[in-house]
Amino acid sequence: MNKPLQTAVDAENAHSRQTPDTPAVVIEEKVMRRNIERVQARLDALGLANRPHIKTHRLARVARLQMQAGAAAVTCQKIGEAEVMADCGIGPILISYNIIGPAKLARLRALASRCELAVSADSAEVVAGLADTFASADRPLDVLVECDTGACRCGVQTPADAFALARRINAEPGLRFAGLMSYPPMTEIEGVYGWLDEAVRKIRGAGLDCTTVSLGGTPNLDSLLPGTCVTEHRPGTYVYNDRSLIARRCCTIDDCALTVLATVVSRPTETRAIIDAGSKSLSSDLLGLDGYGLIKGHGDAVITALSEEHGHVDLTASVWRPAIGDTVRVIPNHACVVSNLFDEVNFADGAGGFEAVRVDARGRSR
Amino acid sequence: MNKPLQTAVDAENAHSRQTPDTPAVVIEEKVMRRNIERVQARLDALGLANRPHIKTHRLARVARLQMQAGAAAVTCQKIGEAEVMADCGIGPILISYNIIGPAKLARLRALASRCELAVSADSAEVVAGLADTFASADRPLDVLVECDTGACRCGVQTPADAFALARRINAEPGLRFAGLMSYPPMTEIEGVYGWLDEAVRKIRGAGLDCTTVSLGGTPNLDSLLPGTCVTEHRPGTYVYNDRSLIARRCCTIDDCALTVLATVVSRPTETRAIIDAGSKSLSSDLLGLDGYGLIKGHGDAVITALSEEHGHVDLTASVWRPAIGDTVRVIPNHACVVSNLFDEVNFADGAGGFEAVRVDARGRSR
Repeated sequence: MNKPLQTAVDAENAHSRQTPDTPAVVIEEKVMRRNIERVQARLDALGLANRPHIKTHRLARVARLQMQAGAAAVTCQKIGEAEVMADCGIGPILISYNIIGPAKLARLRALASRCELAVSADSAEVVAGLADTFASADRPLDVLVECDTGACRCGVQTPADAFALARRINAEPGLRFAGLMSYPPMTEIEGVYGWLDEAVRKIRGAGLDCTTVSLGGTPNLDSLLPGTCVTEHRPGTYVYNDRSLIARRCCTIDDCALTVLATVVSRPTETRAIIDAGSKSLSSDLLGLDGYGLIKGHGDAVITALSEEHGHVDLTASVWRPAIGDTVRVIPNHACVVSNLFDEVNFADGAGGFEAVRVDARGRSR
Repeated sequence: MNKPLQTAVDAENAHSRQTPDTPAVVIEEKVMRRNIERVQARLDALGLANRPHIKTHRLARVARLQMQAGAAAVTCQKIGEAEVMADCGIGPILISYNIIGPAKLARLRALASRCELAVSADSAEVVAGLADTFASADRPLDVLVECDTGACRCGVQTPADAFALARRINAEPGLRFAGLMSYPPMTEIEGVYGWLDEAVRKIRGAGLDCTTVSLGGTPNLDSLLPGTCVTEHRPGTYVYNDRSLIARRCCTIDDCALTVLATVVSRPTETRAIIDAGSKSLSSDLLGLDGYGLIKGHGDAVITALSEEHGHVDLTASVWRPAIGDTVRVIPNHACVVSNLFDEVNFADGAGGFEAVRVDARGRSR
């Protein structure tokens, strides 16, 4: 039943080709490479290791470029992503996520036998599961303590809690305490350093190694400080950039490597255009913004709403009057969720050529 | 490079199995079948043909159940979906979308040669492309005029415009004017009937057939009237239902067939729980609601925010204090975008058994 589909996809994947039909993700390779190099240089200058987060692209090809540019390792959010990266020979890998339950723990143990692997944990329950799983392993699993330094997501709540969990990990024969990990708040990260400093002092004061202190996020790349306890950064979105990062003044329109190519399919009124990219192509992520994406070259046109397959464009404030059949390029609000909607993305060589590449870890959120 | 992935997916697909690992889409087959039968009975009672929209499930298996229950045909939003349905022997098919550009028109012509097909159009430009493509076809293509009766998406703006476009279609040897199609506003559809009545009168007054008058949408199933010019309905979401339809009082919690199974992966504070379903599993669709889904059995717990792989649950208003490792079932705000995020869904037989089924047309938005 699925045979014809698979064949069609494989045929599409095989070769370079003309402009893809819409809706399609297009990635300007030159812009992407520049983004990779720029952030690597920034982290090099700060003396921080780069462990880029592959959740943004879920592509072995891009992870390889990041490693070649000088990344020390890659970060994955889920085991499924890490398995794909390991299949493609990419590592070392940090899974910055609490791994819970027998199915995932069994996969984690199998994965650890074939790549250099670390995970994070933020509770005794998670550590207990890891400890049981790796008690009989040939080599201990590296575990970082996840710290909630203000983003209010996962993480232990105080430096004292971080210390306590570090000791617990250290006491387990199958585990090795490898350091601290935090996804910091996107603004005002200065308090983060104080938090982590205190935790590191406690941990080292007890004679434990604390090799890695890891921060993450593209928005705070500019506010990172040199000469702190932090040893590495895990930026993700920087590889493509997106409208949310333009809004945060982290990049310009020209730094956005990923766009969604769409066609104007209807012009029902003078000031309304409908494009063939809706929430199944652009996602509904707003990230605090108005509108669902930026139409390149037509910043005054507003994507006011999305149906699943329709983008509703209000032209009231714009002089642009597109014709049916015109194509547009939309910079999405959030690149990381967009690349996960498509089975393939199209790398543009800047000379009119496109190469369709399957998104290796699309949908691997398990 | 993709080989290991494919093998893993195929192995997962093969058989019935135990509770799926999280995050996963679970579909209660019994509830889904009841939804299918209930809406079919409702439309039967109204004397309306049922042309369910497969965009909600993108599954041949469910489309087949809808046809077996009495649907006259299926509706697809994109050619990619229609190709998959035709591959699986399902039809007749309406593609309720403007088909534009040589690549899609060539696919449309190929598709029309192997299934009973109709499309919609809302402009002379779209009709011209269809007319050129089908000028030399063995049989004419059925084309419905899409009418904007108040939803402000695609569609001609007045009954007079509908009549003019109907005449244009009728004048093309490769096309057959098949009727009118509208995606009506979700509330107050009474004005819709007046709009369509006027268009039908004009069209029939000129001696043209107007076989089909098609409305759509699950939310207005309850407000449909008998004995009007409307001949069919295209409901989509009813097959699964979701939180947006609960909010609209179109269904109850017990009518929601689709849930996202998730695990509590962190309990950083007394009133915060983090689940392993984020925007890559639940989507960011709000559809006007507060929060990103309803945790079954814990309606006072609020999913206040989503990261890509984290659902942030605020327990302040709830007595529920979940443990790490607990699993929950989340009714998503919008089922149609959720089933498109997963490569497979898991049908639950209600007796503890699950069957993983690949989402045939996932990602087929082109």
